[in-house]
Amino acid sequence: MAQVKVVENILKANDQIAFQNRLALDKHKTVAVNLMASPGAGKTSLVMRTIEALRGRVRVGAVDGDTASQIDADRIATTGIPVIQINTGGGCRLDANMLQSALPQLALDEIDLLLIENVGNLVCPAGLQLGERASVVISSIPEGDDKPYKYPNIFVKVDVVVINKIDLLPYLDFDLDAFKALVKGLNPTVRIFELSCKTGEGIAAWADWLVEMCAL
Amino acid sequence: MAQVKVVENILKANDQIAFQNRLALDKHKTVAVNLMASPGAGKTSLVMRTIEALRGRVRVGAVDGDTASQIDADRIATTGIPVIQINTGGGCRLDANMLQSALPQLALDEIDLLLIENVGNLVCPAGLQLGERASVVISSIPEGDDKPYKYPNIFVKVDVVVINKIDLLPYLDFDLDAFKALVKGLNPTVRIFELSCKTGEGIAAWADWLVEMCAL
Repeated sequence: MAQVKVVENILKANDQIAFQNRLALDKHKTVAVNLMASPGAGKTSLVMRTIEALRGRVRVGAVDGDTASQIDADRIATTGIPVIQINTGGGCRLDANMLQSALPQLALDEIDLLLIENVGNLVCPAGLQLGERASVVISSIPEGDDKPYKYPNIFVKVDVVVINKIDLLPYLDFDLDAFKALVKGLNPTVRIFELSCKTGEGIAAWADWLVEMCAL
Repeated sequence: MAQVKVVENILKANDQIAFQNRLALDKHKTVAVNLMASPGAGKTSLVMRTIEALRGRVRVGAVDGDTASQIDADRIATTGIPVIQINTGGGCRLDANMLQSALPQLALDEIDLLLIENVGNLVCPAGLQLGERASVVISSIPEGDDKPYKYPNIFVKVDVVVINKIDLLPYLDFDLDAFKALVKGLNPTVRIFELSCKTGEGIAAWADWLVEMCAL
């Protein structure tokens, strides 16, 4: 019983800090998006494609979470946008406190859209608020169409599902309609984008949606 | 400081239960293998291929861990082998206690090899003993060749790395030599198998190694 209480308190503390982060972001009219996915689903590739697609339309910044290394942040930095690396030291997700430490290092007045790349994981980050306006799970074709059955929590809680690597559909047994029906069953109001970070197909619709959200 | 102490105690308790599990398994000459991977890397597919390849050679049983659902266990059960489902209720890994609860439900005297499919995750299960003789991480080609950089803990601690979905190499930018060099750099004694659960390529060598381990 005591154990559960501690966890609840931690989660409550997280939500309070997430709320403070949201206020800080709103003050600067910065929209934060929390990108979650399995390892290798294409979080960094989507960040790279998004930066390219939004150049001249909205000013993008990034926060990159990893258990170790900064190769993703280095890759993002080649685009010239401001990027902060958070290493969790083995932790399986970002939390609101980590984002709070990163925010003062960013010139939020010069950032319209903050892309937060969470640690690669479909379990730990599910439902944990950071202060974002929208949460996104990226699911990729090679992972298989059964992921919403097996990791329902994350699919229930996100605002958007991005289906990445659609260029691989011809080579894999992935039932796109069944996948989408399953996602909608868990989360009827979710928005779904189908795209390929490799070919660029579908990126425009995703980018337009982000621009629209920044204009709200 | 108190927080760290609690975690250490929990891990110590886990290792004690893992040791008890190992004794129980050894008593019945059952070899347990802990299979870890990202969601969608092919854990269940490898279990299915392994059961098929070992039929008539060693008697296989399975324990299947998921946060929710039992579709993997149902799929494994179609082969006729004994299988136990463990649902972690959202938890991001199996622990020794969960395996301890499952073992009495299996006729270990009739099982030479127990395949334990962990929850899909590259962070949480890393290094957590369950009572297995060997630990395995399955990495799949579509996840990219940079995973050992980003999730080093799991690659450092396993006995075996299985590279799955090699049939997709022609369609993806994955540097197999660089990946293997990186893994060997982190873990010089690790054994690497390259295979495809889709085509069956490489399964024989993996199956032979399991048979060898059961004969030890």
